[in-house]
Amino acid sequence: MTISHLEKEILQQPTVIRNFLTRQSTNIATISDQVRSKYKFVVIAARGTSDNAARYAQYLFGAHNRLQVALATPSLFTFYNTHPDLSDALVIGISQSGRSPDIISVIEAGRKCGSITLAITNDPASPLALSSDFIIPLGTGVEKAVAATKTYSTSLAAMAMFSSMLSGEKSYLKQIELLPQVMEETIEFAGRDLERVQRYRYINRCSVLGRGFNYATAFEIALKIKELTGVIAESYSSADFRHGPIATVSRGSPVIVVAPSGKLKQDISSLIHKLSTSGAELIVISDSSELLGYAKVRFQTPKGIPEWLTPIPYVIPGQLFALQLTREMGLPLDQPAGLTKITETY
Amino acid sequence: MTISHLEKEILQQPTVIRNFLTRQSTNIATISDQVRSKYKFVVIAARGTSDNAARYAQYLFGAHNRLQVALATPSLFTFYNTHPDLSDALVIGISQSGRSPDIISVIEAGRKCGSITLAITNDPASPLALSSDFIIPLGTGVEKAVAATKTYSTSLAAMAMFSSMLSGEKSYLKQIELLPQVMEETIEFAGRDLERVQRYRYINRCSVLGRGFNYATAFEIALKIKELTGVIAESYSSADFRHGPIATVSRGSPVIVVAPSGKLKQDISSLIHKLSTSGAELIVISDSSELLGYAKVRFQTPKGIPEWLTPIPYVIPGQLFALQLTREMGLPLDQPAGLTKITETY
Repeated sequence: MTISHLEKEILQQPTVIRNFLTRQSTNIATISDQVRSKYKFVVIAARGTSDNAARYAQYLFGAHNRLQVALATPSLFTFYNTHPDLSDALVIGISQSGRSPDIISVIEAGRKCGSITLAITNDPASPLALSSDFIIPLGTGVEKAVAATKTYSTSLAAMAMFSSMLSGEKSYLKQIELLPQVMEETIEFAGRDLERVQRYRYINRCSVLGRGFNYATAFEIALKIKELTGVIAESYSSADFRHGPIATVSRGSPVIVVAPSGKLKQDISSLIHKLSTSGAELIVISDSSELLGYAKVRFQTPKGIPEWLTPIPYVIPGQLFALQLTREMGLPLDQPAGLTKITETY
Repeated sequence: MTISHLEKEILQQPTVIRNFLTRQSTNIATISDQVRSKYKFVVIAARGTSDNAARYAQYLFGAHNRLQVALATPSLFTFYNTHPDLSDALVIGISQSGRSPDIISVIEAGRKCGSITLAITNDPASPLALSSDFIIPLGTGVEKAVAATKTYSTSLAAMAMFSSMLSGEKSYLKQIELLPQVMEETIEFAGRDLERVQRYRYINRCSVLGRGFNYATAFEIALKIKELTGVIAESYSSADFRHGPIATVSRGSPVIVVAPSGKLKQDISSLIHKLSTSGAELIVISDSSELLGYAKVRFQTPKGIPEWLTPIPYVIPGQLFALQLTREMGLPLDQPAGLTKITETY
């Protein structure tokens, strides 16, 4: 049996991030020095998986750097001939390929407005990288599977390091150093319940919930499930979910919950309790035995990870869930029907 | 047969908006004068339906006022004890009830940062309204159905008037005046194909696509379908859809497309063509006979509406679609299972 690129790339993540942290430390420190204290606002342009990385940045920069992040609306730049004044914002483009014209056009508008622009991409020779003042190259090696995994977690690591260096908090940088090992343990633990994923062979829908820093994780896990299996996977913050979509969860509906210890544990815990009472079937990603106790399928994570860094290891059980479900359904792992690696949208 | 509150409130919308435009003109002009030229950034806090109104504002303020809009991340304010510096942003809270504590906490943080705060709410005596410097009361009368309809379209009208007065463009205000009549025509036209909605009696999923100004419309139509019927309805910008979720549309999948004439017509048209070729079943909301030609169920809209105002009439066929589908499924119209009118999240 040949191992899929997808599986290889998921399992490579601890090593890829270990290398990234070592190699990019000086570059990111330099960029941080150029940007520090200049802005209160950040505008990020991204699509698909990279947009989920932007969602993480929105919470991280808000919580650790007091920066307000706006996700750009690229169609304003490409179709409407008019766009926001970006002159007081740091403008960031995130794109694995660096080739989506709409993302490039936001960066170009940022330059015209005189703001500092930063590209986070796996291809430092791409048009996105060439249009930007600064580049953080992800350096993951070519990502061969269409569904992005290692470029996602490395984009998050890039943002984590950038935010920490901007803040000047040495303790954050110390915490980041633990990531590769924590990711290795997460992969090891995830193996235990993976075979049980076969029970979802015939689902046609599921929901994925997360909040705060892990809002991004919920979106990214749902996107992997959709891309790979064609199953409708809806992602919500646990708060937005209560404002309407909770109506779609009937008895037996599978719900994946990203539930780390931290400031939101109480909130997530009460939602898990409510869902459990209403008969939903829960798949829980957590370091808490109490919360894992509600789950039919459980993905235990290592204890002691600071909440702000949990999105990087916590996405892995979700990636493995999507991989395993795709296998159980007998679908192609590296080249899902109807998708291409580089999507150029305007 | 007693008519449901939901149906009444959908049909009231032209009148409600006619009254709103007359009554709020002076108030909104005053607020605009206080805010004009002071900011480049706007931060909007909202949940559920109101969050979709915020999505409209993101495009409208960007295109007509060069303002960059960020959607707030309320959990930073309520759970993490730390939040972005809002001192250079206009801070807006949108909430039908004005009672969700997380939205109020963003407004309070805005005040502490010394920025101007604005509440858009149906209850001018609510805590949200009382915490804000300025209020735009929606004045729709009590909304009795749990699924919000008239407060949504009126929130959009509030934003349209505010943006137009901020810009000082008289032509925009002239265009707004046409809204009530255009909405009446939209309701009249929508009746024609409404009976055909019964063919979706047994769907368990659908997608809703829109882009640019109508990104909000796609989200809001999907939310109504989810709240009222429990059917999984996924909403995407047509660009994000191409970056992954298009994989979930197999032969026969129902896809609702919001497709007005305007700057994005070519883009939407090519997606409609692609979906049609792949065997998706299309429900199209459009003023273009060409695009309606691809549809199994068509909702024609009046011609000549400027694209930036289309979200206000175009949501109505979506509301009626959700209403009709709920009827065909024999589900309660005014009180969907598991939902309450006021959702208080932290």
